[in-house]
Amino acid sequence: MAPQYAQSLRFRLLPLLFFLQTGFIVVFRYVEIEQNVQTKQHAFTNYYAEFQDVHVMVILGFGFLATFLVRYSFSGAGFTLLVAAMAVQWAVILNGVESMYHRRKIGINMRSLVVAEMCTASSLVAIGAVLGKTNPVHLLLIALLEISGFVLNGWLLQTFLKVQFLNTIMLLHIFGAFFGLMLSWVLYRQGSEQQHEKEKIDRKTGLFSVMGTLFLWMFWPSFNSVLVEVDHLDRGRNLRAVYSTYLALAVSAVTAAGFSVLTSPQGKLNLFHIQRCTFAGGVAIGVAMSAVHLPWVAMAIGFAAALISTLGSRYIKPLMLFAFECHDTCGVLSVHGLPGILGWMVQLLLQIADSDDLTTAVRFAVFHICTLLITLSLSMILGLITGFLLKCDFWRPPQNKKCFDDQAFWEFPHLAGKR
Amino acid sequence: MAPQYAQSLRFRLLPLLFFLQTGFIVVFRYVEIEQNVQTKQHAFTNYYAEFQDVHVMVILGFGFLATFLVRYSFSGAGFTLLVAAMAVQWAVILNGVESMYHRRKIGINMRSLVVAEMCTASSLVAIGAVLGKTNPVHLLLIALLEISGFVLNGWLLQTFLKVQFLNTIMLLHIFGAFFGLMLSWVLYRQGSEQQHEKEKIDRKTGLFSVMGTLFLWMFWPSFNSVLVEVDHLDRGRNLRAVYSTYLALAVSAVTAAGFSVLTSPQGKLNLFHIQRCTFAGGVAIGVAMSAVHLPWVAMAIGFAAALISTLGSRYIKPLMLFAFECHDTCGVLSVHGLPGILGWMVQLLLQIADSDDLTTAVRFAVFHICTLLITLSLSMILGLITGFLLKCDFWRPPQNKKCFDDQAFWEFPHLAGKR
Amino acid sequence: MAPQYAQSLRFRLLPLLFFLQTGFIVVFRYVEIEQNVQTKQHAFTNYYAEFQDVHVMVILGFGFLATFLVRYSFSGAGFTLLVAAMAVQWAVILNGVESMYHRRKIGINMRSLVVAEMCTASSLVAIGAVLGKTNPVHLLLIALLEISGFVLNGWLLQTFLKVQFLNTIMLLHIFGAFFGLMLSWVLYRQGSEQQHEKEKIDRKTGLFSVMGTLFLWMFWPSFNSVLVEVDHLDRGRNLRAVYSTYLALAVSAVTAAGFSVLTSPQGKLNLFHIQRCTFAGGVAIGVAMSAVHLPWVAMAIGFAAALISTLGSRYIKPLMLFAFECHDTCGVLSVHGLPGILGWMVQLLLQIADSDDLTTAVRFAVFHICTLLITLSLSMILGLITGFLLKCDFWRPPQNKKCFDDQAFWEFPHLAGKR
Repeated sequence: MAPQYAQSLRFRLLPLLFFLQTGFIVVFRYVEIEQNVQTKQHAFTNYYAEFQDVHVMVILGFGFLATFLVRYSFSGAGFTLLVAAMAVQWAVILNGVESMYHRRKIGINMRSLVVAEMCTASSLVAIGAVLGKTNPVHLLLIALLEISGFVLNGWLLQTFLKVQFLNTIMLLHIFGAFFGLMLSWVLYRQGSEQQHEKEKIDRKTGLFSVMGTLFLWMFWPSFNSVLVEVDHLDRGRNLRAVYSTYLALAVSAVTAAGFSVLTSPQGKLNLFHIQRCTFAGGVAIGVAMSAVHLPWVAMAIGFAAALISTLGSRYIKPLMLFAFECHDTCGVLSVHGLPGILGWMVQLLLQIADSDDLTTAVRFAVFHICTLLITLSLSMILGLITGFLLKCDFWRPPQNKKCFDDQAFWEFPHLAGKR
Repeated sequence: MAPQYAQSLRFRLLPLLFFLQTGFIVVFRYVEIEQNVQTKQHAFTNYYAEFQDVHVMVILGFGFLATFLVRYSFSGAGFTLLVAAMAVQWAVILNGVESMYHRRKIGINMRSLVVAEMCTASSLVAIGAVLGKTNPVHLLLIALLEISGFVLNGWLLQTFLKVQFLNTIMLLHIFGAFFGLMLSWVLYRQGSEQQHEKEKIDRKTGLFSVMGTLFLWMFWPSFNSVLVEVDHLDRGRNLRAVYSTYLALAVSAVTAAGFSVLTSPQGKLNLFHIQRCTFAGGVAIGVAMSAVHLPWVAMAIGFAAALISTLGSRYIKPLMLFAFECHDTCGVLSVHGLPGILGWMVQLLLQIADSDDLTTAVRFAVFHICTLLITLSLSMILGLITGFLLKCDFWRPPQNKKCFDDQAFWEFPHLAGKR
Repeated sequence: MAPQYAQSLRFRLLPLLFFLQTGFIVVFRYVEIEQNVQTKQHAFTNYYAEFQDVHVMVILGFGFLATFLVRYSFSGAGFTLLVAAMAVQWAVILNGVESMYHRRKIGINMRSLVVAEMCTASSLVAIGAVLGKTNPVHLLLIALLEISGFVLNGWLLQTFLKVQFLNTIMLLHIFGAFFGLMLSWVLYRQGSEQQHEKEKIDRKTGLFSVMGTLFLWMFWPSFNSVLVEVDHLDRGRNLRAVYSTYLALAVSAVTAAGFSVLTSPQGKLNLFHIQRCTFAGGVAIGVAMSAVHLPWVAMAIGFAAALISTLGSRYIKPLMLFAFECHDTCGVLSVHGLPGILGWMVQLLLQIADSDDLTTAVRFAVFHICTLLITLSLSMILGLITGFLLKCDFWRPPQNKKCFDDQAFWEFPHLAGKR
């Protein structure tokens, strides 16, 4: 079976990579470098440093977060790099479609790269749900389709609901999580109710994964603040985003540890919660950002987000598996989906409380609810469609016993005679 | 015994976490975000980038430095995150007490966060001495008490001896180290003369720890320079701090390797020295900063610091254990305490040499010696008190055979059926 | 044998370290700190942040990239730190020789430190070829001699061929690679045709090495852009360097994965290619930088560089071993040498295509070809000389069976009774 399977990877992955990569290079003939626009942003900190922070989060943070499976760590880090390198190019192209239509040129600047990295982050969230049960061809197709859907979603919201750009981009957690969930539901395999023998962590892969966590945790304030525009009335908006995210993350880390101990049968900490639920506050505060003005509100959001994230990881994740036959490897529902929706709710409540009259409040609420409904339906429908596309045997999914195993995709030096 | 112990963690850790965290959120209602004050500092580099460097050092540097014990690596990284997330909030509150008293408000800005992170670093130094022999409840209490003592010490020195703020904050190494030592002396366990069977490193945890070392080593110039104020007479003061620290660290790394080989019975390198003594120069130069003007002086300080740090790790550490019954897991005396005192001495000598007349020199010497004496006595007394507080069985310290072991605090996935 | 060998390390390494380090401190008495010159560069981003990026690449990137050998990971990371700490001081001195001659002073500023780190990177490339087959004394001597040669090469090119400073410094990959190859050829050991039993990676060291890769990959745009001078006619030159490198690296990662699968007998990915060939695009674009103006050209260069790098790692590396008896541990020929020469060729072609008349084109071509010939001959000759110097038994090279093994140089805690 092994050589047959291995061949299939070559004849599927290779044409896909070359077709896409040469295609991208051709399309990039229409891309031109723009001088960085001198915005107010620059008063705060230069864009390049913050771009680097986001870059580190996407490549190193998500990459090493995905190394936690004991026999799948090369794939976790390697496939994330491969997918991200491809996805970022695709996102630059998609985000430039409108400019291409009007000016026959796609501009590239620091801000457009940051946006492209955030779209990539969205696809990496989706991939988290199916990690280990797919091959790299699947992952590439998922990433490209997810980013297309996410960009479409942003365009719809901006065009028809006049949602601000920043608010649409921060829906990346919700979009990615529900896209990934539906995908994982369609790709469900018989026999997944029992935990796969290789779906576990060991001391060292756990620690690599903690490293990814820490990089996400440390640079999340940059992630949430980099696209915040400074306006004349409120000059410290991006600094406020930094402080809010920082405090929410600190509270999240403490709360996740607390609830992890509380819900444990033996009163012990669970590494999975420390790895993932510690940054639930960053997710929630990112979505709610525009409405959060006070530090203690940010901290309370961080508390609530870590609470539902930890409880979700402990109780909803197994429930999803048994009741809905949906296996969620990285727990994206609890880590990105639920905290994202919490952030959305908090934004709704705070905006209504801030409104002067009832009309504005109702109007905002209607638009805000429509935003969520459109995002949820689009992500779930596209997730389903992607799932059915990938379910066919043409893409040769890994056999059940080869799941969560690097062996299927990587040459192993202690087996191979030569590197 | 195991379930009994495990329960105790829940009923001690959980109330503490929730009480503190909700208390902090309530206190943070008095915290308001300040626009970053436009100081001269900004001419050099923006504050946010340097704040990130310090943040990376505290979370990732100290966190992974503590993963070196073979069976205690989850605890090393995880507890550091937990303690730091809590300690930083406490430090923001404590540093704002004065402002709270006068203005009923605590301001938060980049500089106050940097100061809070440095207080946290001080508590992480202290924790290094008792790592592996305590539970997370101990660690949280140690951190909160240590930070309180450190802030009190700074306040005393600034108020009564008119010591500059920067000089008081750089005493963090000395304060943390002696606090930790006294603590460890009080918490001494029978039987610790023999090395604990789990108190050792293996190839992989050693490498994780080296990673932490490198992050500390690389970003130390930011740590030492971020709080240096630029004045009109000497505009490059913070750049000088960067260069001095950079050169001192380079010399430290070389010197630590050299003395490690010299003092080894077999003429080999010792990983522990490479992990810790390489940044002794950064500690010493940080304390002596305001008096160091020439690159070669910085390098000579780096040389001397690495020398006493390596000799201390090799000879004083076992001596402390046998003669004084004080077990120092991370060797904080040799890594932070002695180089800190060296830096203090160098500052004294250089300032005296720079003085024009005898009166200023004597006056400075008296004040400088008082500074050290107050810091040492306060840190040691508070360390003793904290030790006696934590010694009681109410906090349920880990049993001897459970020391240096993650098993007591973490659910292990290969044992547990489900994550 | 063991104690005898161990003693030799002490009596060789120790005098070398102390002689050099005290010598450097003495020379640094002539070093003075310069205020950072306010160049146009600062409009783009401040120098300190980019210096940090390069610093991270050299210490952490190269350091952890060298941890891939299963029993040589302490040495990989530790010796890189030791060598870099020494080499950076030596590079500062060498680069200041001219200024020393004229002004009796060596100035030190952010730019001179960046240049020193790049010279260090060049020596680390050379060391990659002999990693695991040498002792630290060898490595230090190689680094010092390689940097001397590289600085000499730059001086020759600038003085006699009027090559721009940036173009000479970017030859570091070519110089380092061919220096290392010649060195490795001279130091060839009998019996190296068979793969050494310890010359392999395992899951965890492979992952540490991937971490090094990612740090190099993420910060490479800073590496290529930091020394680009902004001029009045073309204000975005350094930003263009950032975008070009970023895109070339993304394409490289995809291409390396593709060709790794294509050339694998089983159609699987090879971790070695993902670790090294993914940044071939960064090497090539760095050399060709001044001639690359369009994003798609950068991407095409990234494609070609990853192609020759992957094919080189797969086919030329074993060929070198069998046909020329040259063992290249890290594959520096394929990873740095060939992509560097590719970049050189692309620069030649693009410059000729951009020229207005034939005379300038021919003139440029002649100078450009001379540049490469001088660099290649100087690097190879110095590599040969260094090799013969180090071949003598005085330096006590490790025995064949001790190659690729930490045991020869490090105290191991599970063997030693006390740390």
